[in-house]
Amino acid sequence: MSLIVHKYGGSSVADADRIKNVARRVIRAREQGNQVVVVVSAMGRTTDELIELARQVAEKPDARELDHLLSTGEVVSCTLLTMALRSMGQKAISLTGAQAGIRTDSTYSRARITGISPKRISRELEKGRIVVVAGFQGVNDELDITTLGRGGSDTTAVALAISLAADRCEIYTDVEGVFTTDPRLVPQARKLEEIGYEEMLEMASVGARVLHPRAVELGWAYGMPILVASSFNDDPGTLIHRGVPMEITNKVSGIAHDSDVAKVTVIGVPDRPGIASAIFEPLARANISVDTIVQNAGINRITDLTFTVAKSDLSKAMGVIKPVAESIGARDCASDTTLGKVSIVGAGMQTAPGYAARMFKTLSEEGINIELITTSEIRITCIIDGAKVPQAARALHRAFELETR
Amino acid sequence: MSLIVHKYGGSSVADADRIKNVARRVIRAREQGNQVVVVVSAMGRTTDELIELARQVAEKPDARELDHLLSTGEVVSCTLLTMALRSMGQKAISLTGAQAGIRTDSTYSRARITGISPKRISRELEKGRIVVVAGFQGVNDELDITTLGRGGSDTTAVALAISLAADRCEIYTDVEGVFTTDPRLVPQARKLEEIGYEEMLEMASVGARVLHPRAVELGWAYGMPILVASSFNDDPGTLIHRGVPMEITNKVSGIAHDSDVAKVTVIGVPDRPGIASAIFEPLARANISVDTIVQNAGINRITDLTFTVAKSDLSKAMGVIKPVAESIGARDCASDTTLGKVSIVGAGMQTAPGYAARMFKTLSEEGINIELITTSEIRITCIIDGAKVPQAARALHRAFELETR
Repeated sequence: MSLIVHKYGGSSVADADRIKNVARRVIRAREQGNQVVVVVSAMGRTTDELIELARQVAEKPDARELDHLLSTGEVVSCTLLTMALRSMGQKAISLTGAQAGIRTDSTYSRARITGISPKRISRELEKGRIVVVAGFQGVNDELDITTLGRGGSDTTAVALAISLAADRCEIYTDVEGVFTTDPRLVPQARKLEEIGYEEMLEMASVGARVLHPRAVELGWAYGMPILVASSFNDDPGTLIHRGVPMEITNKVSGIAHDSDVAKVTVIGVPDRPGIASAIFEPLARANISVDTIVQNAGINRITDLTFTVAKSDLSKAMGVIKPVAESIGARDCASDTTLGKVSIVGAGMQTAPGYAARMFKTLSEEGINIELITTSEIRITCIIDGAKVPQAARALHRAFELETR
Repeated sequence: MSLIVHKYGGSSVADADRIKNVARRVIRAREQGNQVVVVVSAMGRTTDELIELARQVAEKPDARELDHLLSTGEVVSCTLLTMALRSMGQKAISLTGAQAGIRTDSTYSRARITGISPKRISRELEKGRIVVVAGFQGVNDELDITTLGRGGSDTTAVALAISLAADRCEIYTDVEGVFTTDPRLVPQARKLEEIGYEEMLEMASVGARVLHPRAVELGWAYGMPILVASSFNDDPGTLIHRGVPMEITNKVSGIAHDSDVAKVTVIGVPDRPGIASAIFEPLARANISVDTIVQNAGINRITDLTFTVAKSDLSKAMGVIKPVAESIGARDCASDTTLGKVSIVGAGMQTAPGYAARMFKTLSEEGINIELITTSEIRITCIIDGAKVPQAARALHRAFELETR
């Protein structure tokens, strides 16, 4: 008998009919002879509505209280799904994150899972029950409730799959899988049957928005196969796993993009040791996630340092950076919010240098200027004019022949 | 420093403005130098909405899952109140029933509190914090969440007050206290400054609907003073306690009424031992609460047995009773849903028999026929035509001079 973990997102459990639909899918998996653990997100816009309620009573809601409040959203959806399963004649039980043994640190609103004691889940599975777990939440050493941050239910599902030594983790959502690029921008985008963890990570973190990167990282670390598929039809979806064949990994597998990019440049920075940490440590302390970092070649030991952040973090970042720039003797600070990001992703690209050249040539032929370039082992990213991101994605999708495979 | 427990019902925390209003009341109690524990119900109609959601996914929602679902309502209101308190500069923390140490049995939907370990609450109070506890819920030995049934938040508040050795339990609600009778029926109804537990119990269980009888019983057993007052103004309310003076307890203190009465008569019952238990045991097993029971004097060892139940339980009760009546050789079963109940309540009535006579005379003068009469030590109840309950309450209120004291 196989053990599989299903995860259903908020839009898949948005109302009573959709919950019953999810129940039927879970029952099908059970009737195929599997043990099934199900992780659910809060219904539809519940989390946003609870945040709005919190804002009505307090300008800056306390983090512990907010986590405690938000955790109720997943308890509602997991108990409703369990009721639906039971009324369809199945043995089933709901568990909160705490009851499911999910322990976290105390970083409210973005807690990290520190360990899982799956004893209660295993006991319920042995009784022949389907176990429905509230996603997105855990409990710290004080037994206070924490949440894992947006997308945390994906992480819950993969972490449970690992701790239960499940055969597979299946993430059901409102998209049909991982595409070669965003189908809303490029109609020729093609669904991938399979993809490696690392490529998926590059696709997700640069904007493909199918599966939370933390969940992919966790799956990668433990080699847990993750299927991403639609909860609304029976199409096969995309399997993220280790065993992706060489001939596929050796090519560009997708085009990722992101329009949520703001650029900050610290101008006239003295080029001496300790300068980078003087700039980036305060940003880290302010919990601002810095993406691309480029330091231009300097003359006379004076350099420009450029980095990108999410647009929503820009004003906070400028508030942190301006006094820092002054204190290290930089000339000025500038920012730009009209930018976007486009990337080609594919394992083994670094050993085949033709890819970078083809990318730059394609953008140049489209008349698109490249502001910044960064690369990883399996990704080349160009920061360009934000308005030209769709055009760039279409041109690159065509240039790397992604529609024809 | 005094320790007091406040409890606020659903209508007192129905929206953000009301929650902020409650926060200000709690802060006032704190600033008067008290340690404060606050118990809250779910916001407004939350519980009903969650039950409706449950019915949409399952015809008969599982009891464990339903309790787990409903418990989220109080978690939402207690975290919101805590956020409001903190944003007003107070130290405060929210706790679920489980975190507050409220242990119950496993009777889902109407669990009984088996004990309270108030260690966590005491620790938080010592840190100078206001502690806000989710009412209506607890946790069983399996750490599964249970609910105490409707009105359970009152019980939570009184039980916490007892276990913390609080000085007083204050129940804030949408009524201003305990009245001599229902002010909606009798405009002359007068608010009582104080009342004994036993009288309060008779007033509550026969329909005064101010405070859940379980909470009164619990307060009585441990001598915990309970104040019932409005959460919308600063009027003094009614104090329920032991020290009510003799001269007041020796009179009729109020008129209670109830329109939710259905009568069942088992006709032609053989009058032999074991018949009563043959009838009432199956009703108890079906969890139907039987109120008044009257067995008419029989001739030839044949008798009629009459009892009342809540109207909502009638069809279930008839389903249980019909086969029982047949098996014990009764002639027939009949039911009547057009009835109501009116009672006079007052300590020491039994030792002053004039009260019963005055009650019957008053009803007779109003042309109201009495169907059934039952009495307790401190209460006389008449079952009458349901349509005449308001008229009866007004007449009795006048006859016992309740408006003039």
